[in-house]
Amino acid sequence: MTDGPSPRRSTCPINAALEVLGDRWSLLIVRDMLFEGARTYKDFLASQERIAINVLANRLTKLQGVGIIVGERDPQDGRSMLYRLTAKGMDLVPVLMELSTWGTRHEDGQPPNGLLDAWRTDREGFMKNIRIAATAH
Amino acid sequence: MTDGPSPRRSTCPINAALEVLGDRWSLLIVRDMLFEGARTYKDFLASQERIAINVLANRLTKLQGVGIIVGERDPQDGRSMLYRLTAKGMDLVPVLMELSTWGTRHEDGQPPNGLLDAWRTDREGFMKNIRIAATAH
Repeated sequence: MTDGPSPRRSTCPINAALEVLGDRWSLLIVRDMLFEGARTYKDFLASQERIAINVLANRLTKLQGVGIIVGERDPQDGRSMLYRLTAKGMDLVPVLMELSTWGTRHEDGQPPNGLLDAWRTDREGFMKNIRIAATAH
Repeated sequence: MTDGPSPRRSTCPINAALEVLGDRWSLLIVRDMLFEGARTYKDFLASQERIAINVLANRLTKLQGVGIIVGERDPQDGRSMLYRLTAKGMDLVPVLMELSTWGTRHEDGQPPNGLLDAWRTDREGFMKNIRIAATAH
Protein backbone atom coordinates (compact mmCIF):
# COMPACT_ATOMS: atom_id res chain seq x y z
CA MET A 1 0.00 0.00 0.00
CA THR A 2 1.45 3.31 -0.98
CA ASP A 3 -0.39 5.20 1.75
CA GLY A 4 0.46 2.75 4.54
CA PRO A 5 2.98 3.51 7.26
CA SER A 6 6.59 3.64 6.14
CA PRO A 7 8.62 0.61 7.22
CA ARG A 8 10.32 0.86 10.60
CA ARG A 9 14.02 1.53 10.65
CA SER A 10 14.59 -1.33 13.09
CA THR A 11 12.79 -3.88 15.26
CA CYS A 12 13.83 -2.06 18.44
CA PRO A 13 10.76 -1.26 20.57
CA ILE A 14 12.27 2.04 21.75
CA ASN A 15 12.69 3.11 18.15
CA ALA A 16 9.17 1.87 17.32
CA ALA A 17 7.70 3.96 20.14
CA LEU A 18 9.69 7.04 19.14
CA GLU A 19 8.78 6.70 15.45
CA VAL A 20 5.08 6.50 16.33
CA LEU A 21 5.16 9.29 18.90
CA GLY A 22 7.05 11.67 16.66
CA ASP A 23 7.96 14.97 18.24
CA ARG A 24 7.24 16.38 21.66
CA TRP A 25 3.87 17.92 20.78
CA SER A 26 2.21 14.51 20.56
CA LEU A 27 3.24 13.65 24.11
CA LEU A 28 2.13 17.06 25.38
CA ILE A 29 -1.33 16.46 23.88
CA VAL A 30 -1.48 13.08 25.64
CA ARG A 31 -0.33 14.78 28.86
CA ASP A 32 -3.16 17.34 28.66
CA MET A 33 -5.72 14.60 28.08
CA LEU A 34 -4.43 12.57 31.02
CA PHE A 35 -3.86 15.26 33.60
CA GLU A 36 -6.03 18.20 32.56
CA GLY A 37 -8.98 16.36 31.08
CA ALA A 38 -8.42 18.16 27.75
CA ARG A 39 -10.81 16.95 25.06
CA THR A 40 -11.33 19.82 22.59
CA TYR A 41 -9.26 22.10 20.35
CA LYS A 42 -9.99 24.90 22.79
CA ASP A 43 -8.65 22.85 25.69
CA PHE A 44 -5.42 21.99 23.86
CA LEU A 45 -4.88 25.56 22.70
CA ALA A 46 -5.22 26.79 26.31
CA SER A 47 -2.13 24.87 27.37
CA GLN A 48 0.90 26.82 28.65
CA GLU A 49 3.18 25.73 25.82
CA ARG A 50 0.94 27.46 23.26
CA ILE A 51 0.84 24.85 20.54
CA ALA A 52 0.15 26.35 17.09
CA ILE A 53 -3.27 25.39 15.71
CA ASN A 54 -1.84 23.82 12.54
CA VAL A 55 0.58 21.70 14.59
CA LEU A 56 -2.29 20.69 16.87
CA ALA A 57 -4.48 19.65 13.92
CA ASN A 58 -1.62 17.66 12.42
CA ARG A 59 -0.77 15.85 15.65
CA LEU A 60 -4.40 15.03 16.47
CA THR A 61 -4.74 13.42 13.05
CA LYS A 62 -1.51 11.47 13.55
CA LEU A 63 -2.48 10.35 17.05
CA GLN A 64 -5.80 9.09 15.71
CA GLY A 65 -4.03 7.33 12.84
CA VAL A 66 -1.88 5.32 15.24
CA GLY A 67 -4.76 4.56 17.62
CA ILE A 68 -3.58 6.60 20.62
CA ILE A 69 -6.70 8.79 20.62
CA VAL A 70 -10.14 8.68 19.07
CA GLY A 71 -12.23 11.66 18.02
CA GLU A 72 -15.99 11.90 17.79
CA ARG A 73 -18.45 14.68 17.07
CA ASP A 74 -19.62 16.49 20.17
CA PRO A 75 -23.29 15.43 20.59
CA GLN A 76 -23.99 18.89 22.07
CA ASP A 77 -22.33 20.73 19.18
CA GLY A 78 -22.01 18.89 15.88
CA ARG A 79 -19.34 21.28 14.59
CA SER A 80 -16.80 20.40 17.23
CA MET A 81 -14.90 17.26 18.01
CA LEU A 82 -14.27 15.55 21.32
CA TYR A 83 -11.09 13.53 21.71
CA ARG A 84 -10.33 10.79 24.19
CA LEU A 85 -7.44 8.45 24.87
CA THR A 86 -7.62 4.79 23.94
CA ALA A 87 -6.15 2.05 26.16
CA LYS A 88 -3.02 2.32 24.00
CA GLY A 89 -2.88 6.05 24.78
CA MET A 90 -3.36 5.50 28.49
CA ASP A 91 -0.47 3.06 28.48
CA LEU A 92 1.76 6.09 27.83
CA VAL A 93 1.34 7.15 31.49
CA PRO A 94 4.58 5.44 32.63
CA VAL A 95 6.54 7.14 29.81
CA LEU A 96 5.16 10.55 30.82
CA MET A 97 5.77 9.96 34.51
CA GLU A 98 9.39 8.95 33.92
CA LEU A 99 9.88 12.03 31.72
CA SER A 100 8.36 14.08 34.55
CA THR A 101 10.67 12.48 37.11
CA TRP A 102 13.71 13.23 34.96
CA GLY A 103 12.59 16.75 34.07
CA THR A 104 12.02 17.50 37.75
CA ARG A 105 15.37 16.12 38.88
CA HIS A 106 17.52 17.51 36.09
CA GLU A 107 15.72 20.36 34.37
CA ASP A 108 14.01 22.30 37.18
CA GLY A 109 10.54 21.21 36.11
CA GLN A 110 7.79 21.90 38.64
CA PRO A 111 5.40 18.96 38.88
CA PRO A 112 1.99 19.31 40.53
CA ASN A 113 2.27 18.71 44.30
CA GLY A 114 2.38 15.08 45.27
CA LEU A 115 2.18 13.73 41.72
CA LEU A 116 5.62 12.13 41.55
CA ASP A 117 5.33 10.72 45.07
CA ALA A 118 2.01 9.11 44.16
CA TRP A 119 3.64 7.56 41.11
CA ARG A 120 6.72 6.37 42.94
CA THR A 121 4.94 4.78 45.87
CA ASP A 122 2.09 3.03 44.06
CA ARG A 123 2.28 2.74 40.30
CA GLU A 124 -0.65 0.39 39.96
CA GLY A 125 -2.94 2.51 42.12
CA PHE A 126 -1.82 5.57 40.16
CA MET A 127 -2.69 3.92 36.83
CA LYS A 128 -6.05 2.80 38.20
CA ASN A 129 -6.94 6.34 39.33
CA ILE A 130 -5.94 7.76 35.97
CA ARG A 131 -8.19 5.26 34.18
CA ILE A 132 -11.13 6.07 36.47
CA ALA A 133 -10.64 9.82 35.95
CA ALA A 134 -10.32 9.37 32.19
CA THR A 135 -13.58 7.49 31.84
CA ALA A 136 -15.42 9.95 34.13
CA HIS A 137 -15.13 12.96 31.81
CA MET B 1 22.99 35.91 27.52
CA THR B 2 22.10 35.80 23.86
CA ASP B 3 23.62 32.37 23.33
CA GLY B 4 21.99 30.80 26.38
CA PRO B 5 19.14 28.32 26.15
CA SER B 6 15.83 29.72 24.99
CA PRO B 7 13.30 30.16 27.79
CA ARG B 8 11.06 27.17 28.48
CA ARG B 9 7.51 27.29 27.27
CA SER B 10 6.21 26.19 30.68
CA THR B 11 7.31 24.95 34.10
CA CYS B 12 5.96 21.46 33.40
CA PRO B 13 8.69 18.84 33.94
CA ILE B 14 7.39 16.70 31.08
CA ASN B 15 7.72 19.64 28.73
CA ALA B 16 11.14 20.47 30.18
CA ALA B 17 12.34 16.93 29.51
CA LEU B 18 10.93 16.91 25.99
CA GLU B 19 12.40 20.32 25.13
CA VAL B 20 15.85 19.17 26.25
CA LEU B 21 15.66 15.76 24.59
CA GLY B 22 14.45 17.12 21.28
CA ASP B 23 13.66 14.55 18.66
CA ARG B 24 13.97 10.78 18.70
CA TRP B 25 17.58 10.63 17.55
CA SER B 26 18.86 11.93 20.88
CA LEU B 27 17.16 9.12 22.76
CA LEU B 28 18.43 6.53 20.27
CA ILE B 29 21.98 7.76 20.86
CA VAL B 30 21.46 7.39 24.62
CA ARG B 31 19.98 3.92 24.02
CA ASP B 32 23.08 2.83 22.06
CA MET B 33 25.37 4.11 24.81
CA LEU B 34 23.39 2.30 27.51
CA PHE B 35 22.70 -1.03 25.87
CA GLU B 36 25.35 -1.41 23.16
CA GLY B 37 28.27 0.31 24.81
CA ALA B 38 28.48 2.75 21.89
CA ARG B 39 31.14 5.41 22.43
CA THR B 40 32.39 6.54 19.01
CA TYR B 41 31.00 7.97 15.77
CA LYS B 42 31.64 4.60 14.17
CA ASP B 43 29.59 2.84 16.87
CA PHE B 44 26.64 5.22 16.46
CA LEU B 45 26.72 5.00 12.68
CA ALA B 46 26.59 1.17 12.90
CA SER B 47 23.16 1.29 14.53
CA GLN B 48 20.21 -0.29 12.69
CA GLU B 49 18.34 2.97 12.28
CA ARG B 50 21.15 4.43 10.15
CA ILE B 51 21.41 7.90 11.61
CA ALA B 52 22.84 10.42 9.13
CA ILE B 53 26.29 11.68 10.08
CA ASN B 54 25.24 15.35 10.16
CA VAL B 55 22.29 14.53 12.41
CA LEU B 56 24.59 12.50 14.64
CA ALA B 57 27.10 15.35 14.91
CA ASN B 58 24.32 17.81 15.73
CA ARG B 59 22.73 15.61 18.41
CA LEU B 60 26.07 14.76 20.06
CA THR B 61 26.79 18.48 20.38
CA LYS B 62 23.32 19.13 21.81
CA LEU B 63 23.55 16.21 24.24
CA GLN B 64 26.90 17.54 25.47
CA GLY B 65 25.42 21.03 25.77
CA VAL B 66 22.70 19.84 28.12
CA GLY B 67 25.03 17.61 30.14
CA ILE B 68 23.62 14.22 29.15
CA ILE B 69 26.92 13.04 27.67
CA VAL B 70 30.54 14.12 27.79
CA GLY B 71 33.08 13.72 25.03
CA GLU B 72 36.85 13.42 25.34
CA ARG B 73 39.68 12.76 22.94
CA ASP B 74 40.53 9.10 22.60
CA PRO B 75 43.93 8.70 24.32
CA GLN B 76 44.75 5.96 21.78
CA ASP B 77 43.82 8.09 18.78
CA GLY B 78 43.86 11.85 19.23
CA ARG B 79 41.73 12.43 16.12
CA SER B 80 38.70 10.61 17.46
CA MET B 81 36.34 11.32 20.33
CA LEU B 82 34.98 8.99 22.97
CA TYR B 83 31.58 9.76 24.44
CA ARG B 84 30.10 8.60 27.72
CA LEU B 85 26.89 9.19 29.62
CA THR B 86 26.81 11.39 32.68
CA ALA B 87 24.68 10.56 35.74
CA LYS B 88 22.01 12.79 34.20
CA GLY B 89 22.16 10.69 31.04
CA MET B 90 21.96 7.43 32.93
CA ASP B 91 18.85 8.68 34.69
CA LEU B 92 17.11 8.38 31.30
CA VAL B 93 17.04 4.57 31.69
CA PRO B 94 13.48 4.53 33.12
CA VAL B 95 12.23 6.71 30.24
CA LEU B 96 13.80 4.35 27.68
CA MET B 97 12.52 1.24 29.44
CA GLU B 98 8.95 2.57 29.54
CA LEU B 99 9.19 3.49 25.85
CA SER B 100 10.44 -0.05 25.24
CA THR B 101 7.56 -1.55 27.23
CA TRP B 102 5.03 0.51 25.27
CA GLY B 103 6.67 -0.14 21.90
CA THR B 104 6.69 -3.87 22.61
CA ARG B 105 3.07 -4.00 23.73
CA HIS B 106 1.59 -1.73 21.09
CA GLU B 107 3.98 -1.45 18.16
CA ASP B 108 5.39 -4.94 17.69
CA GLY B 109 8.85 -3.95 18.87
CA GLN B 110 11.20 -6.86 19.59
CA PRO B 111 13.16 -6.22 22.78
CA PRO B 112 16.26 -8.27 23.63
CA ASN B 113 15.29 -11.46 25.47
CA GLY B 114 14.60 -10.95 29.15
CA LEU B 115 15.25 -7.21 29.14
CA LEU B 116 11.72 -6.06 29.98
CA ASP B 117 11.25 -8.79 32.59
CA ALA B 118 14.46 -7.75 34.30
CA TRP B 119 13.22 -4.16 34.36
CA ARG B 120 9.74 -5.05 35.60
CA THR B 121 10.81 -7.33 38.39
CA ASP B 122 13.72 -5.33 39.85
CA ARG B 123 14.13 -1.74 38.73
CA GLU B 124 16.81 -0.88 41.27
CA GLY B 125 18.89 -3.94 40.46
CA PHE B 126 18.50 -3.15 36.78
CA MET B 127 19.73 0.43 37.24
CA LYS B 128 22.65 -0.79 39.33
CA ASN B 129 23.74 -3.27 36.63
CA ILE B 130 23.49 -0.60 33.96
CA ARG B 131 25.72 1.72 35.99
CA ILE B 132 28.29 -1.01 36.56
CA ALA B 133 28.33 -1.90 32.85
CA ALA B 134 28.61 1.76 31.86
CA THR B 135 31.67 2.39 34.01
CA ALA B 136 33.32 -0.86 32.87
CA HIS B 137 33.80 0.13 29.24
